[in-house]
Amino acid sequence: MSAAAVPKYVYFFDEGSAAMLDLLGGKGAGLAEMTAAHLPVPAGFTITTQACLQFYAADRALPPGLDEQIDTAMLDLERRTGKGFGSIERPLLVSVRSGARVSMPGMMDTVLNLGLNDRTVEALARLTQNERFAWDAYRRFIMMFSSVVLGIDKSVFEEQIEAAKQARGVKGDTDLDAGAWRDLADAFKATVRECTGHPFPQGVREQLDLAIRAVFDSWNSKRAIDYRRFNRISDDWGTAVTVMEMVFGNMGDDSGTGVAFTRNPNTGEKRLFGEYLRNAQGEDVVAGVRTPEHIIDLERSQPDVYRQFLDIAEKLERHYRDMQDLEFTVERGKLFMLQTRSGKRSAEAAVKIALAFVDEGLIDGDAALGMVDANALDQLFHARIDPAQSIASVARGLNASPGAASGRVVFTADDAVAAKARGEACVLVRVETNPDDVHGMIAAEGILTAKGGATSHAAVVARGMGKPCVAGCHALQIDLRARRATLAGHPLAEGDWIAIDGSSGNVFLGEVALIPPPSELPPWLATFLDWADSRRRMEVWANADTPEDARKARELGAQGIGLCRTEHMFMQTERLPIVQAMIIADDRAARAEALARLLPFQRDDFAGILEAMQGRPVTIRLLDPPLHEFLPSLEALLVETTEMRERGQTDSQAYRDKVHVLARVQQLHEQNPMLGLRVCRLGIVYPEIYAMQVRAIFEAACDLRARGIDARPEVMIPGVGTREEMQVTHDAAKAVAESVLRERAQEVAYRIGTMVELPRACIVADELAAFAEFFSFGTNDLTQTTYGYSRDDAEASFIPRYLEKRILRDDPFQVLDRRGVGSLMRQAVELGRGARAGLKVGICGEHGGEPSSIAFCERLGLDYVSCSPYRVPIARLAAAQAAIGTLA
Amino acid sequence: MSAAAVPKYVYFFDEGSAAMLDLLGGKGAGLAEMTAAHLPVPAGFTITTQACLQFYAADRALPPGLDEQIDTAMLDLERRTGKGFGSIERPLLVSVRSGARVSMPGMMDTVLNLGLNDRTVEALARLTQNERFAWDAYRRFIMMFSSVVLGIDKSVFEEQIEAAKQARGVKGDTDLDAGAWRDLADAFKATVRECTGHPFPQGVREQLDLAIRAVFDSWNSKRAIDYRRFNRISDDWGTAVTVMEMVFGNMGDDSGTGVAFTRNPNTGEKRLFGEYLRNAQGEDVVAGVRTPEHIIDLERSQPDVYRQFLDIAEKLERHYRDMQDLEFTVERGKLFMLQTRSGKRSAEAAVKIALAFVDEGLIDGDAALGMVDANALDQLFHARIDPAQSIASVARGLNASPGAASGRVVFTADDAVAAKARGEACVLVRVETNPDDVHGMIAAEGILTAKGGATSHAAVVARGMGKPCVAGCHALQIDLRARRATLAGHPLAEGDWIAIDGSSGNVFLGEVALIPPPSELPPWLATFLDWADSRRRMEVWANADTPEDARKARELGAQGIGLCRTEHMFMQTERLPIVQAMIIADDRAARAEALARLLPFQRDDFAGILEAMQGRPVTIRLLDPPLHEFLPSLEALLVETTEMRERGQTDSQAYRDKVHVLARVQQLHEQNPMLGLRVCRLGIVYPEIYAMQVRAIFEAACDLRARGIDARPEVMIPGVGTREEMQVTHDAAKAVAESVLRERAQEVAYRIGTMVELPRACIVADELAAFAEFFSFGTNDLTQTTYGYSRDDAEASFIPRYLEKRILRDDPFQVLDRRGVGSLMRQAVELGRGARAGLKVGICGEHGGEPSSIAFCERLGLDYVSCSPYRVPIARLAAAQAAIGTLA
Repeated sequence: MSAAAVPKYVYFFDEGSAAMLDLLGGKGAGLAEMTAAHLPVPAGFTITTQACLQFYAADRALPPGLDEQIDTAMLDLERRTGKGFGSIERPLLVSVRSGARVSMPGMMDTVLNLGLNDRTVEALARLTQNERFAWDAYRRFIMMFSSVVLGIDKSVFEEQIEAAKQARGVKGDTDLDAGAWRDLADAFKATVRECTGHPFPQGVREQLDLAIRAVFDSWNSKRAIDYRRFNRISDDWGTAVTVMEMVFGNMGDDSGTGVAFTRNPNTGEKRLFGEYLRNAQGEDVVAGVRTPEHIIDLERSQPDVYRQFLDIAEKLERHYRDMQDLEFTVERGKLFMLQTRSGKRSAEAAVKIALAFVDEGLIDGDAALGMVDANALDQLFHARIDPAQSIASVARGLNASPGAASGRVVFTADDAVAAKARGEACVLVRVETNPDDVHGMIAAEGILTAKGGATSHAAVVARGMGKPCVAGCHALQIDLRARRATLAGHPLAEGDWIAIDGSSGNVFLGEVALIPPPSELPPWLATFLDWADSRRRMEVWANADTPEDARKARELGAQGIGLCRTEHMFMQTERLPIVQAMIIADDRAARAEALARLLPFQRDDFAGILEAMQGRPVTIRLLDPPLHEFLPSLEALLVETTEMRERGQTDSQAYRDKVHVLARVQQLHEQNPMLGLRVCRLGIVYPEIYAMQVRAIFEAACDLRARGIDARPEVMIPGVGTREEMQVTHDAAKAVAESVLRERAQEVAYRIGTMVELPRACIVADELAAFAEFFSFGTNDLTQTTYGYSRDDAEASFIPRYLEKRILRDDPFQVLDRRGVGSLMRQAVELGRGARAGLKVGICGEHGGEPSSIAFCERLGLDYVSCSPYRVPIARLAAAQAAIGTLA
Repeated sequence: MSAAAVPKYVYFFDEGSAAMLDLLGGKGAGLAEMTAAHLPVPAGFTITTQACLQFYAADRALPPGLDEQIDTAMLDLERRTGKGFGSIERPLLVSVRSGARVSMPGMMDTVLNLGLNDRTVEALARLTQNERFAWDAYRRFIMMFSSVVLGIDKSVFEEQIEAAKQARGVKGDTDLDAGAWRDLADAFKATVRECTGHPFPQGVREQLDLAIRAVFDSWNSKRAIDYRRFNRISDDWGTAVTVMEMVFGNMGDDSGTGVAFTRNPNTGEKRLFGEYLRNAQGEDVVAGVRTPEHIIDLERSQPDVYRQFLDIAEKLERHYRDMQDLEFTVERGKLFMLQTRSGKRSAEAAVKIALAFVDEGLIDGDAALGMVDANALDQLFHARIDPAQSIASVARGLNASPGAASGRVVFTADDAVAAKARGEACVLVRVETNPDDVHGMIAAEGILTAKGGATSHAAVVARGMGKPCVAGCHALQIDLRARRATLAGHPLAEGDWIAIDGSSGNVFLGEVALIPPPSELPPWLATFLDWADSRRRMEVWANADTPEDARKARELGAQGIGLCRTEHMFMQTERLPIVQAMIIADDRAARAEALARLLPFQRDDFAGILEAMQGRPVTIRLLDPPLHEFLPSLEALLVETTEMRERGQTDSQAYRDKVHVLARVQQLHEQNPMLGLRVCRLGIVYPEIYAMQVRAIFEAACDLRARGIDARPEVMIPGVGTREEMQVTHDAAKAVAESVLRERAQEVAYRIGTMVELPRACIVADELAAFAEFFSFGTNDLTQTTYGYSRDDAEASFIPRYLEKRILRDDPFQVLDRRGVGSLMRQAVELGRGARAGLKVGICGEHGGEPSSIAFCERLGLDYVSCSPYRVPIARLAAAQAAIGTLA
C-alpha cells in the first residue's frame, strides 16, 4: 500500500464532531462535540472504527501507518498538555477506552493511568506531592492492565490486597498507606511475571500499543458478542479507541468522580439524577466500595462545580435534544467532562421526556415520536418483577407470553381452580398443557411448562389470555403422582412459592414482589399515542378471540379485529366433548348433529365479538388446526389402553370406548400435522364444518343488525394455496352467507378473503385475488414453510443454536425475514393488487406487533397490521414511526 | 344475439379436415380427412365441440341457431342420400356418435339406427325385403336409445330377450325370427312407457334432438370425468357429435363389421391386426356374442373387399404417418370406412413402429422420437400382470413402487427370509415397515402395507430396491399375532397367494401370472435411445444408493449419479445398532466413538459407488432425515414399557434400557419432523456427523485414485435456506476434504454444492451460489413447503379428494407444479447463474423422471435431470423430445 493511500485513523477531539459517530464511536463523537462547544474536556484523540475493522481484516495486525499516526498524536498530546509520555519530569498519563457506534455499557475494556512505570510513578509522587496517591495509581494501573490486556484474573490481585489489609490489621483500602501500595505494586509485578513469564511492561509506548490492541480485541469478546446478539447490534461496526489525558478524582476531598442523567430515567422528571463519589476514580463507583452521594448533594459541598455542571448538563441536553447520560471528574475543584451520551430510560420516562421536550420547544412532534422505542411500551402493560429486590433466577425457559406472575405451585388444572377458590395465587406447572387444562390456566396467575415452544398449546393459549407463560423450561422435571418437581436441582413441592417472568423466560424460587400493570391507558400515553395516530398511514387492528379481548383491544386503540381464531372457541370446556363427538362421528349424520349443537355456541361467540367491535371490521378465520388437536393425545391413549389390557379390563365398556377413540386418533394421526389435513383443506374435505361456521357468523350479524348494531364480519379462509381452493371455499361461504341474509331479510356488509400463509399463495396471489376481497398475511405459517422450520420444533431445538452460532441474526418467528418471507409478501401484494385494484392487505401473524416488521409492512404498503391487544399501543407508535421514516 | 353472430356449428364431412381436430373432434376430423381422400365414407356431418361448450355455458340449453343448422343439414343429408328422414318410402337412418379431441374409448355414448319408428320400420322391412332385419334394427334402436338417452338400465331389455328365447326354446339371438323381434319391440316400448311415463318417441327429429343432447351430456358423465382425470385430459374441450347415414353390417353374409390396426399394436409387426364379424352391427363385436374372425381371413371370404381395405389402410397410415385404428362396415359387399384414428400400442410396438417408419422413409428421426410416449417405456422395465388372464383386483392402495409381484403372504420380515430360503416367492404384508424389516423386504418379491404414503419407509425403500410396493392399502387389516389378515373382507392367511401391481396400486387374490422384464436394454430400444441421446441437450443422471443401482443406472445410460442418499446406508442391519448408539450417546465422546465405527462402512459404500461410476460425477448427499427415524417407534416403546411396568419388571435391566431409549426418543420427538432438526441443520448442530461422512467420501476417493480409478465425488448439502448455513457447511466440508487430500497426498477433482429444496433457498439463491458449486433441485421437499403439504399425510388423505374434486389437476408430487414450484425454480436458476457463471443446475426429485416435468426442466435450462435407474430410458427420451420441442 502506498503511503498516500493510508487513511486518517487518528482524530483529535477538536477535529471531530457528532456527525462522525460511525467513525469515532459514541464516546469519541461526544468528546469531540463537547470540545467544539468549549466545554472542559481533557485533551485527547480517537482512533477510528475503521482502524479496528482493518485490524480484523488483517487477522489482528494493526493497519500500516497507524503506529506512525499514533506517534504523531502522542507528540501533539504532549505539546497540548505540556507533559511527556514516559517523562520522569512531568509524566503524561492517559486513559484508553473503547467506544462503539452505540453504547454497550460494561461490555468492552478500559485502561486508566496508562503511562505509569517504575520511574514515572516516582515523578507523579513528586509532582502531586502525594506519594500514596501515586503508588495507589500505579497499583491500579497494573491491576487493570494485567486484567484487561494480559488476561490475568483480577481476583489474584484482590486477594493480595485483602492479605495486606489483614497483615496490617486494617479494614478499608483508604487505610492502606503509600508504603503498603508500593509493596503491593511490587507484589503485583511479581505475579505478572509468574503468570506471563515476562516482566510487567515498563515501556509506555508498548503499554499504549498493547492497550489499543486489547480494546480492539474486546469488540469480539464473548460477552460483547452476546450483548450485541441480544440487542441486535451489528458485528460489522467495530469499536473506536479514545486516548485521553488522565484527570484524577482521587486527589483529595476537593476531587471526585460522578455519573448523572440530565433527567430522571425512571420517571422522566426534569431534575439531575445521579451520584458522585468524593476522592475516587471511576472504577470505585462501579465497584461499590463506598456509597456515593446523590448528585444534588454536590450543590452543598462544591456549589461552583455543581452550578457549572448543571449548566453544562442543560447545554448538552439542548444541544443533543435528548436526555444525556454524563460522566465527569473533579480534579482539585476543576470540572472535567469525560462522556456524554443519550441516556437509557424506562418506557414511562421515554414518553414523558418526549412530551416535555415538545412542551419546552426543544423538538417537534415527529421528533418526539421518534424518541421512544416502540417495543419498550410493552413494559407498561404487564406486571413486572420489582427490580428493587435482589433475586436471581434459577432456571430459564422460552419467554412464551409476557408479564410476570408469582404464586404457589400447583400441578393440575383442578388444583389451580381449587387454589383460586381459596383465594390463593398459584402458578400452574405442567409438562405441557392441553385443552383439558384450560380452566386451570384461567385460574392460575401464570403457566410454567417443561416442554413446548412458542406455538405450543400453553404458549398460544396463554398469549391469548394475556397470562404470563414460560414454556419449554428444560430444567424442570415433574413427578405428577407425587405432586413434586425439581427445578434446576431445587426440589419443588405443591404449595411452594415460585415466580415466572414471561418477558425474559426467567423462573425464580420463593415469594417475589411484582409491580402491577396500569388498569388503563395513562393520560400521558394516550396523548402521545394520539400524536402517533395523526401521523400513521396504516391502521392498527388486533387479534382477539373473545369479546373481552376485543373490548380491551378497542380501549387500547384497535380499529378492527384482524384475526379471530375460532378454534379456541372449540376448546372451551363445555364444547370440547361436542367437538370430539363431531370428529369421532362415524357418519355424516352424526357429524351434522354435533355441528348443529355447536352452532349456537359459535353464534354467541361471534355475536359477542361483533357487538364489541360494532362499526369496525371483525375478521373471523374459519377452522384452521388439524382435527386431532381436539382429541386426547395418542401417547396417553396408548399407555391407558395397554394398562387396561394388562389389567384384564378388555371386557369393560370403558376399554371399548377408549379403543374406539384411539382408533380415530390413530386414523387422524399425521406425520407432520402442520402440513396435513388442516386450514382450508378441512373446509374442502368436511364442507359442513365451514358451512356451520359461516352460518353462525351471519346469523349473529343478522341478530345484531336487527338490534340496530352495525356488525361487520369479514370471513377469512385459511391456508389457501391454489386458485381452485380459493374459488371453492369462497363460493361455498358466499352461498351460505347469502342464504342466511335472505332467510333473515337483512343486509350486512361483509367481505370474504384469505389468509396468505403459504409460499404458493404468494406466487399465485393474482389468481386468489380474483375471488378474495382481502389478504391477511399469516406470517407465522409463511415463515414456517419458507424456511422449512416447524416453529414448535425449531424454537425448542436448533434456532437457539443458530442464534448462538450466528447462522441466524434474529429468530425469524419474532422478526420478519425481509429477504425471504418479505420477498414473497411483496410478490403477493403486487400480484394481488394488480388483479384487484384496492385489494385490502394486512398482516395478522405475530410480526404485526413487532416494530421492525411493522416498518417493513409500511414499505410494502399494507393497509393495516394486526397484533395482540396489548401490543396495539406498540403498533400504533411503530406505524407512525414507519410513516415518518424514523423506523426503517 | 343477432343472427349474424351465430357461429357455424355444423360441418359436412366434405367441409372439414384433419386440421380442424379441436372443433370437429377426432372422429369428425378423421371422417372429413377420409372423405377428402375420396375413401368410401357414408354421408354425414359433425356438430362442433364449440356447440357442446355453449351447451354447458348455457346450463345445458342448445345454443341459439343450432337447431336451424341441424335442420338444414338433415335436408342436405336427405338430398345427398336420396332418402327421407322419417320417410315411409325410403327412410333415412343415422348413427349419432360422440368424438372428442382425443379418443376416450367406451367413455361416451353412441346411438345407432336412429330414425326408426313404428312406421319407418315397416318401410325398412319393405325396402330391404328383410322383415327380420328391420325389426331387429328397431328393437336394437329402442334398447340403445332407451339406455343412452332415457337412462333405462339395459339389463331390463336383455332379460326380456332371454325370456323370449326361453319361451321359444331357442338359444341364440339369431334363432329369433321377425315376429319375435317385433313382439320384443312392442314389449320394449311398453317398458319405456312404464319407466318414463311417456311413450317411446316416434318423432325422428325429436329422437335426433334428444340423442345430440345425450352425447353432449355424456362428456360430463362420471366415467368420462374419471377417465379424463386418470389420463390428464382437459375438462374444457367438450365433445363433437357426428351424424352419419347408417350402413348395415347385418344384412347377410356379404355384410359385416370390423376393427383393425394397420400394424400389430403389441409387437409393431407390419401386418393388419384386427377382427371381423360377419352379418353383424358394431355393438355385436363389443358384446362378444359371437367370436369374430381374424381380419386376415377376410382375404379368403371377400378378397375384393379385403384388398380395397388393405389399400385404404396403407394409404391412411402413410397419410397420417402413424399406425391407424380403423372401423369399417361392409354392407352387401360394399366397404364403408367409419373411423380412422391413431392406434394405441404397447411401448415395444411404439418404438418398433417408429423405427420402421424411419426405415420406410415415412418420417425422420425427430418425428420418430416424438411418436413414443416416454412414460410408456416404464412398462418395459418391470414385471407385469399378464393381461391374458382374466382377473379382478379386490383392493387398491397407493402405487408406491412400480412393477408386479406375486407370492405367498408372509407377515414378518423373518418369515420372508425363511420363505426365500425354502425357495418360495412371498409378498411381505405389514401395517407399515421400519428399518428392522429391510432384510424381509430384500427377501420378498414385493411389499404390501396398510398404512403409509409415497414417502413412507416401505415406499422409499422399495423404490430404492426396485421392488414392487403397494402402500397404504386401507382395506387391509392385519392381526399379526394370529398371522392372519382380511383384505376388503376376504380372509388372508399366511401362505395364501396374492399379487400386487405397484404400477396401478391394485391387489389381487390367488396365483397370478406375470410377464418378467427384459434382463437388458433390448437392441431396438438401445438404437432408439441412441437417437434420443444425439438430440438431447440435458444430461440424464440417476439416483442410486448402492453400487448395484449405480451399475444398473449406467447400463441404462445414466451419465452420473445425481443423488446418493447416505441415510439408507445407515439403515442396513449391521449398522443400525451403531447408528442408534451414536444417536443415544449421552456425550460427545460416545458419539465420536460410534461415528468412528461407522466411518469404514461409509467409506466402503462410497468406494463401491464411485468405482461403479468411474469417470462420472457421483453426487453424495450428506445425512438428511431427522435422527429419530433411526430409532424404534415412540408408540411401540410406550406400549412395551407400560406392559413391563404392569408386569412388575421395572427392576430388570431390559426395562431400564428401554426406558433410556424411550427418553431419548421422546427428547428427539418432533411435532413436524419434516420441518425439524434435519438436513443441514443436523450437520450444523452435530458437525461431527457431516465431518465423518465427508472424510469417508474423500478417503474412498483417494483409495480409488491410488488404484488409478477416476473417482469424482460431489458433496451435496441438503436443505440449505440461508447464506450462513451454506457458508458454514461448505467451509466445514471443504476443510475436511482438503485435509484428507493432504494426508493422502492425492488430487481429486470435486465439487461442493447444495440441494435446493426450500422456498427460501430459491429466493436467496444468489447468496448460496457464492459458495455452492452446483444446485440440485429437491422438488419433493420443495413441493412440500411451497404448498404446505406433507407428502406422507397429503397423499393418504386430502390429495385423493382434491383430485376427485378437481381442486388439483395433478398430484404435484408426481407432476411438477410449474406455476408455483416452477416459478421458485426459475428464480433460483436465474439468481444462481447470475451470481456464479456456469453454475451447474440439475434436479434430483422424483420429477426428474417424469416427462412433462423434464420438459419444464429443459425450458429452465437445467444441465441434467436425475431419476431412479429404471426411469433413465424414459428421461433420455423425454429430454430429447423436450429439446426437439415435441414435448412441452
